[in-house]
Amino acid sequence: MVTTQTSAKAADNGAGLIAAPLIVLGGGEHARVVIEAARTQGDRWAVQGYVAPEATEIGDDVPWLGNDAALAARLDDLARSDRPWLVLGFGGGETAAGLAARSATTARFGPDARWATVVHATAWISPTATLRDGAVVLAQAVVNAGAHVGRHAIVNSGAIVEHDVRVGDGSHVAPGAAIGGGTHIGENAFIGLGARVRDHLEIGAGAVAGMGAVVVESIAAGATVVGVPARPYERGA
Amino acid sequence: MVTTQTSAKAADNGAGLIAAPLIVLGGGEHARVVIEAARTQGDRWAVQGYVAPEATEIGDDVPWLGNDAALAARLDDLARSDRPWLVLGFGGGETAAGLAARSATTARFGPDARWATVVHATAWISPTATLRDGAVVLAQAVVNAGAHVGRHAIVNSGAIVEHDVRVGDGSHVAPGAAIGGGTHIGENAFIGLGARVRDHLEIGAGAVAGMGAVVVESIAAGATVVGVPARPYERGA
Amino acid sequence: MVTTQTSAKAADNGAGLIAAPLIVLGGGEHARVVIEAARTQGDRWAVQGYVAPEATEIGDDVPWLGNDAALAARLDDLARSDRPWLVLGFGGGETAAGLAARSATTARFGPDARWATVVHATAWISPTATLRDGAVVLAQAVVNAGAHVGRHAIVNSGAIVEHDVRVGDGSHVAPGAAIGGGTHIGENAFIGLGARVRDHLEIGAGAVAGMGAVVVESIAAGATVVGVPARPYERGA
Repeated sequence: MVTTQTSAKAADNGAGLIAAPLIVLGGGEHARVVIEAARTQGDRWAVQGYVAPEATEIGDDVPWLGNDAALAARLDDLARSDRPWLVLGFGGGETAAGLAARSATTARFGPDARWATVVHATAWISPTATLRDGAVVLAQAVVNAGAHVGRHAIVNSGAIVEHDVRVGDGSHVAPGAAIGGGTHIGENAFIGLGARVRDHLEIGAGAVAGMGAVVVESIAAGATVVGVPARPYERGA
Repeated sequence: MVTTQTSAKAADNGAGLIAAPLIVLGGGEHARVVIEAARTQGDRWAVQGYVAPEATEIGDDVPWLGNDAALAARLDDLARSDRPWLVLGFGGGETAAGLAARSATTARFGPDARWATVVHATAWISPTATLRDGAVVLAQAVVNAGAHVGRHAIVNSGAIVEHDVRVGDGSHVAPGAAIGGGTHIGENAFIGLGARVRDHLEIGAGAVAGMGAVVVESIAAGATVVGVPARPYERGA
Repeated sequence: MVTTQTSAKAADNGAGLIAAPLIVLGGGEHARVVIEAARTQGDRWAVQGYVAPEATEIGDDVPWLGNDAALAARLDDLARSDRPWLVLGFGGGETAAGLAARSATTARFGPDARWATVVHATAWISPTATLRDGAVVLAQAVVNAGAHVGRHAIVNSGAIVEHDVRVGDGSHVAPGAAIGGGTHIGENAFIGLGARVRDHLEIGAGAVAGMGAVVVESIAAGATVVGVPARPYERGA
């Protein structure tokens, strides 16, 4: 289901007058950032707490709701329309293992889970952009005209996703990165801190652009590039 | 005529209570971005439509008004004070041909045309900055104290134009680029995606700083530099 | 004394209904930027003027209040609770001399001076971030969850200070720079224009990361690094 901010609000909150309950999956640093982003839109989201293997120091004002199993049991007792919304609260880094943990978590809660799209109040989201379920857009970011941010994808603080860019499901555009217009990024890719990607390129699924990389050519699926201009990364080089 | 946002509003809209009619010249990706920027200031601009050789897929809610000749004929029938405002809606890229197309378009409508200054609502424009006619400043950008943005110049999404910078007529500071304080950029220059330019440099007319370039020395007119630190670009190198 | 925006407001302005008097130390380009930032929060700060060796062209609407000695004499005549707030209005650049001038200025006004924390209205400051006395955060910047910005530190325009970053006293994060989560920056360090610093590093006191540097390893105290990836700077190299 494609969910823009506006349509989600209308569909899920009735008249849009009350905030929807939100649970963040994760108890680390990124979870806190996501919680604070949700709280900037207090008319949209009411954060109920976080789910993690154990209680963390995430903040005195955010209740720990137990682990994934506890949450799953809790959801099972509720009709879908009564269930809280969920959002991933860990980034997974740029490793395959991290991405797998994210995918495993989303799979665990099944196709009926309601995934929230969380957008920081200071981000600019074009009215013609599309944000899919579970997408997270953080402070001062730009998602420009006609852009698409896939399921569970992250557009981190100050990142720029230009017009007509496609950010694939599960991909992460790290803080301060900039993606030129019309570039397509596949699923589960990682664009590192402050990297730049030229317009109208194809970035394959699972590709990684290292921190600060200047990407001037398309990247094959699964490949890692670094440097200026970005070249394939050779371990130990 | 120097036009700051505030003075333009006062001068052109009488009491400033009604939005001025705006026509965007161009029907491509950048045109849509400019239209959306204008719409973030709905009390300032009422977008009437776009002008292009043929109708494009720019959006169902933006009328196509014909080509440049049709617009010129339309303007000829109106007293200047009744004419809609115009703004360039294509960037022209970093090539001389693209820049020439922009210049040809502005020339076509003559010295009597009313060129709009379009500023996205999320941009920060210092009250001591000057934006000339036709300048466009996009989402999350900064134009800091004492800076000057010339006629038809573009400060793209998330770009930072620091205090006392001068962006020459027709120049384009691409998304995420940052220009240090006091640097002067000549006419029709192009500062690429995410490039950085040191403070208090001189960037000549028609110069190009490539995507991601880190410019630590002044650039001669017409020169192209790339890399970190930026060096003259040698084709085929 | 740790002063967050909110607590400072409550503590210093009584009911928080009137703006506090603010004097900017410096009369150059950066002073004007700081003054404009303070004016974006007009309910918080009322700029009384600037202090400099001589009157500058800082703006017709900002009175010159004499030099440091004149200000010191003026403050001596007032009870602490009646004194205006002060903020440094010069950056000092990346040189040891510049930093020393900043330190000398703060020392001159002694431990009883009231140092203002000035935050531009367009910056995002996490509610769990801490800004110490004298810190300045400029337009479109991000100071994310759990971050700490030390005394007299500068987070310049569009800079991104990610979650749990520590910016040491007197340090300067230049425009457009991005610091990854959990990195600790010591005192009087300088992170250049558009530089990026990996998460969870240690940047020593007095360290300098050059403009556009991509810092992937910790930096020793006093060291200067440049380039992509950043390497120790060798003069003349």
